[in-house]
Amino acid sequence: MTRADRVCARFAAKELDLLLVTNLVSIRYLSGFTGTNALVILGPDTRRFLTDFRYVSQATEQVTGFELERAPQEFFEALREGWPDGRLRVGFEDDHLTVRQLARLEGIVPGPVELVAAGGLVEAERALKEPGELAAIQAASDLADDALRQVLEDGLAGRTERAVARALEDEMRDRGAVPSFPTIVASGEHGALPHAVPRDVEIPIGVLVTIDWGARLGGYCSDCTRTFATGETDGALGEIYDVVERAQGEALAAVRPGPTGREVDEIARRIIEEAGHGEHFGHGLGHGVGMEVHEAPRLAKTGKEPLQPGHVVTVEPGVYVPGRGGVRIEDLVFVTESGHTVASGLPKHLTVVS
Amino acid sequence: MTRADRVCARFAAKELDLLLVTNLVSIRYLSGFTGTNALVILGPDTRRFLTDFRYVSQATEQVTGFELERAPQEFFEALREGWPDGRLRVGFEDDHLTVRQLARLEGIVPGPVELVAAGGLVEAERALKEPGELAAIQAASDLADDALRQVLEDGLAGRTERAVARALEDEMRDRGAVPSFPTIVASGEHGALPHAVPRDVEIPIGVLVTIDWGARLGGYCSDCTRTFATGETDGALGEIYDVVERAQGEALAAVRPGPTGREVDEIARRIIEEAGHGEHFGHGLGHGVGMEVHEAPRLAKTGKEPLQPGHVVTVEPGVYVPGRGGVRIEDLVFVTESGHTVASGLPKHLTVVS
Repeated sequence: MTRADRVCARFAAKELDLLLVTNLVSIRYLSGFTGTNALVILGPDTRRFLTDFRYVSQATEQVTGFELERAPQEFFEALREGWPDGRLRVGFEDDHLTVRQLARLEGIVPGPVELVAAGGLVEAERALKEPGELAAIQAASDLADDALRQVLEDGLAGRTERAVARALEDEMRDRGAVPSFPTIVASGEHGALPHAVPRDVEIPIGVLVTIDWGARLGGYCSDCTRTFATGETDGALGEIYDVVERAQGEALAAVRPGPTGREVDEIARRIIEEAGHGEHFGHGLGHGVGMEVHEAPRLAKTGKEPLQPGHVVTVEPGVYVPGRGGVRIEDLVFVTESGHTVASGLPKHLTVVS
Repeated sequence: MTRADRVCARFAAKELDLLLVTNLVSIRYLSGFTGTNALVILGPDTRRFLTDFRYVSQATEQVTGFELERAPQEFFEALREGWPDGRLRVGFEDDHLTVRQLARLEGIVPGPVELVAAGGLVEAERALKEPGELAAIQAASDLADDALRQVLEDGLAGRTERAVARALEDEMRDRGAVPSFPTIVASGEHGALPHAVPRDVEIPIGVLVTIDWGARLGGYCSDCTRTFATGETDGALGEIYDVVERAQGEALAAVRPGPTGREVDEIARRIIEEAGHGEHFGHGLGHGVGMEVHEAPRLAKTGKEPLQPGHVVTVEPGVYVPGRGGVRIEDLVFVTESGHTVASGLPKHLTVVS
């Protein structure tokens, strides 16, 4: 079964005849196309791929298994006609299509076409990685690890946060990847910002430095976080590190088919709450990773789905104390039939890098 | 008047009481906030700024002129209550909000709140640049020009497309900016792809090379394209270059307050059509540039709005001949009271870089 076949196998739950795919990441997943304007129409006997002038040659090279059509740049226009006869239930990605796009689409498709909210069908399939996808994610993760190892050779103290982030991104580029998101390097008090932007500030001796980075290679992302010390830190920060390390380890141990994202999140959250830092862990435990650095499934209070073999998720608790600093430890994890394997390769005990 | 005040002055046309702003670029424009999760509620007497746990410290540093509120990560929940009494017409950005988000919002807001499609109000204001914004765009453009000049010192022939793109992006980063979009370096036949991705292929002598690049600096983008020759090229390509240069020059000469985007597009399109290349110019003439590299207004068949002082647009005709190659020449242009000024600084005559 192709990816498109597997998505079509999910139509029954929504009684769909066809699905309009507008999310470009999902279009790449289904077709191989990497450009920025395309529309896919899927059905049991339908594999239409529409793109505009700028991308016709590229689509001809990249796309297999679809009937290619050149459409105007505003290509909903191509949907005025060409539908099979009779009443049709046509799904659209309501988690991606804007309200305005839907209004336009409603004005274009003929009467017998009923548009049905059907977001997440491709994403659910994307969440279950094939062996080749797991290999691509592992390769991205290995590359990102190697890049950080290289950067740490030059130490952290005395360099600016921005210089470290740039060096790490350059190392990833030198190895043929690109950063999968803007690198976070946050030292000292700034570590209390979960999404800190690197500053032109020298990293001092004797602080914690949180580095959150990832590579995108062959269309797949990695995501990892480690928190380092630049020498002896004060005892309170060491205690926080221990709490986060324990929360991360125990939540990780629970990653296997069966528990919901919410249940795994709860394990880390309870440990952090019992240590008196509940209010300092305000984000979810983790998220799926694949072609996008944030995708299904969620490890958070909203994660109602049970984990399944083929899921790739992060496990990344953190404690952030305003005015003081923060710790986050994140692994990238593959859910397997019998449990999990960890893609991230760097040690998790507190490492001093001066 | 603040930016928020000017947006509120546009409420009358849609009889709005309040506007929900969900587009993060527009939120940055209004508030200064650079994080990735926030919601702004604007009204004549309302300036609410909502963000979640991860961004509270950052918002406190960055945001002025708004009442800050910490909300749950799923922050439509914060909209269940806290509304003024009586019936309210509340606009939302229908060109940004997804169908699913609107459905959630409709389930959350209380009965007297009527949700009204009102996209584009902030974008229309963003299209009219303030002097400080023009200065920021000019600075980004100057930086990008300097970066390319530096890269061209090492020549083009014999380097791979990817190496040239990487060197150019590194030069922009070394100067404190980031690329405003993935750099295009397309040589020879590959120049026929308007959105070519740089290849690991050496640029030969005697071909045309299209370079489309831009910098983002201080939150504002630049965008420019030049096509170079790596030595003597065949005569047909030289003729194409002349046609594109003429089309670009004549369309540029028409840029001033008054004509619509469609009218300016038409000038370039007619010249290219008369030269027999109408089918080889399949994209619009240009687009607005600001905090985003593509924004309002459009210079294209769909550009119904007259140009106004403060608009910043690209003028970028191209001719793409499959199997042969392509030429695109793009300037970044400020519409002024009396006409225009060109931000791009590199010469437009065909320059040989070996």
